[in-house]
Amino acid sequence: MLADGVLVVGTGLLGTSVGLALRRAGVDVRLRDTKAEVLNEAIRMGAGRAESPDDAPAALAVVAVPPEAVGTVVADVLSSGDASYATDVASVKVLPAAEVRARLADSGRYVGSHPMAGREISGPGGALADLFEGRPWVLCPDDQTDQQVVTRALAVARLVGASPVTMTIDDHDAAVALVSHAPHLVAVLMAARLVDAPAHEVRLAGPGVADVTRVAAGDPALWTEILAANAHAVRSVLTDVRRDLDRLLAALETSESARADLYQIMRSGVEGRSRLPGKHGAEHTEFATVAVVVDDRPGQLAKLFADVGAAGANVEDVRIDHSPGQPLGMVEIDVRPGTDVTLRDALTERGWNVHA
Amino acid sequence: MLADGVLVVGTGLLGTSVGLALRRAGVDVRLRDTKAEVLNEAIRMGAGRAESPDDAPAALAVVAVPPEAVGTVVADVLSSGDASYATDVASVKVLPAAEVRARLADSGRYVGSHPMAGREISGPGGALADLFEGRPWVLCPDDQTDQQVVTRALAVARLVGASPVTMTIDDHDAAVALVSHAPHLVAVLMAARLVDAPAHEVRLAGPGVADVTRVAAGDPALWTEILAANAHAVRSVLTDVRRDLDRLLAALETSESARADLYQIMRSGVEGRSRLPGKHGAEHTEFATVAVVVDDRPGQLAKLFADVGAAGANVEDVRIDHSPGQPLGMVEIDVRPGTDVTLRDALTERGWNVHA
Repeated sequence: MLADGVLVVGTGLLGTSVGLALRRAGVDVRLRDTKAEVLNEAIRMGAGRAESPDDAPAALAVVAVPPEAVGTVVADVLSSGDASYATDVASVKVLPAAEVRARLADSGRYVGSHPMAGREISGPGGALADLFEGRPWVLCPDDQTDQQVVTRALAVARLVGASPVTMTIDDHDAAVALVSHAPHLVAVLMAARLVDAPAHEVRLAGPGVADVTRVAAGDPALWTEILAANAHAVRSVLTDVRRDLDRLLAALETSESARADLYQIMRSGVEGRSRLPGKHGAEHTEFATVAVVVDDRPGQLAKLFADVGAAGANVEDVRIDHSPGQPLGMVEIDVRPGTDVTLRDALTERGWNVHA
Repeated sequence: MLADGVLVVGTGLLGTSVGLALRRAGVDVRLRDTKAEVLNEAIRMGAGRAESPDDAPAALAVVAVPPEAVGTVVADVLSSGDASYATDVASVKVLPAAEVRARLADSGRYVGSHPMAGREISGPGGALADLFEGRPWVLCPDDQTDQQVVTRALAVARLVGASPVTMTIDDHDAAVALVSHAPHLVAVLMAARLVDAPAHEVRLAGPGVADVTRVAAGDPALWTEILAANAHAVRSVLTDVRRDLDRLLAALETSESARADLYQIMRSGVEGRSRLPGKHGAEHTEFATVAVVVDDRPGQLAKLFADVGAAGANVEDVRIDHSPGQPLGMVEIDVRPGTDVTLRDALTERGWNVHA
């Protein structure tokens, strides 16, 4: 079905990662980028080959350009005959769909998609063949969409190792506003408070505020585009945040009924977080944690994980508790419940400082 | 100076951790808690001994009770003669200081302190002798404070391995409002948006929103107390957040000048985050990252870190990129710049899938 090859337009982080993953699966991948040096880096990395005038129309174009450019580029590759069908990988879906429809009579040859994967590094240099492994890959067909393009986009999603999910463009944009765009902005709002803060205050910062603000370090120009392209759905989430913030500011007054309100708001935080999927939230209690104190000498982690391996434990997750500017500190190892006791005993026996 | 021993009042996470660390340093520690089972657990863990009627006044009481109870408890241990001097470890300092002053004529025998350490687990079971290792321990003396109590509190801070820092009570409460309480609330506000969200939206959540909301899982009753006790300083930070949020909501409109505003807000997030100390922020560029793909077989991390150790690399930090419900994924290893190339080559040679 992809025998005529795939054309990747835009060889940044996502486009190059798609190319690397498809090449690994044996697909003929041709690459296009308006910047020659970016294109050449992607080719050098093995994400595909340069286009040739002799190429037949590609089975599918994967358009990996900024959200605002998707409409123009999709219309161009389909009307030029460079590809028979097209999808994109932008993190918003309503705007590109509207722009493709405005530009193409047969817009059914396009289906929007969004692989839920990324890194804080941008450009082809950050690309990974494994980037999409196990991640949701959202497809947004509607009743105008040609079944051929859905089948081809699904094939790409599966070949790169992703888990395809289908939803409407509106549901998609509401979902990413909730789980990606609004969290990004909340992190930015908090990080912005640090800009002019006195050094003696910032010096007391620990791992909590570092976690809350981590995503705020993302490329501001790219995020501006993403947010502007999903402004409606993001406003909806942030308007609710603002309502709760007003309630919170009122509850920080000292009367007892306000105290009860403050508690309710704290409770809703615990409850909301428990809904997150996977290792972070709802299923977190599936794992038991073994905490080990290690010092900063070379080879300590190697020795620790060698002993963990020798104990037969399968590590589900690892966290290191940071003490800025200090020796390494605490390593927390998550394993399946039941195996934690064995691991704890084995590590203690080998001389590790293991905590309850 | 601590030859007459230390009395720890309140054997929760912090009190028991102080006891464990002081016992390790050879100090005589007596423990007190209103709940017998909590006290007995702390004694069983080796954090100290039960009080005896024959005890001379302790050199220092370390009061580790909720912020609202600090004033009463400090006044009680000092006026009863159970201890000659007292400090507390509550995460707010203005309120306890006012309450001690209101209750004691010689309030100079008390100095407020705040070790910047904690865990999401509460109670003596979560206590660690290493909890304070390398963490800031804030002391808040004023011109009424007896030098004796400062010297003794400093001795405790040093014996438990912390780094003492001195500031005024007002500066302290403003600092923790900025780097701890406001980030907690921002995380709660975001997590609260997930409570009633449709399952198909929450399902798309990735590591970003999990980081932003992690601290929101903390004990809501304890946080309500902390926030109510520092309401003024927290309101000040959140009022600034609200002003930026209003600016952000306005900027999500589509005109070009609003777009420039949106970009400015994103930039301030990047800039603010870069001010965080240690491995998380400002000094982050001190490290180079080597990213390795591993699968979920037992012993893979052991093998990896054994190979890292054999390559002579000293690991500064480790992150695992989570794919909920999927094989382990990507391990990112931070090492000092210059050593990353050697490590990358060594791991590649040993057959690891290493990324640029």
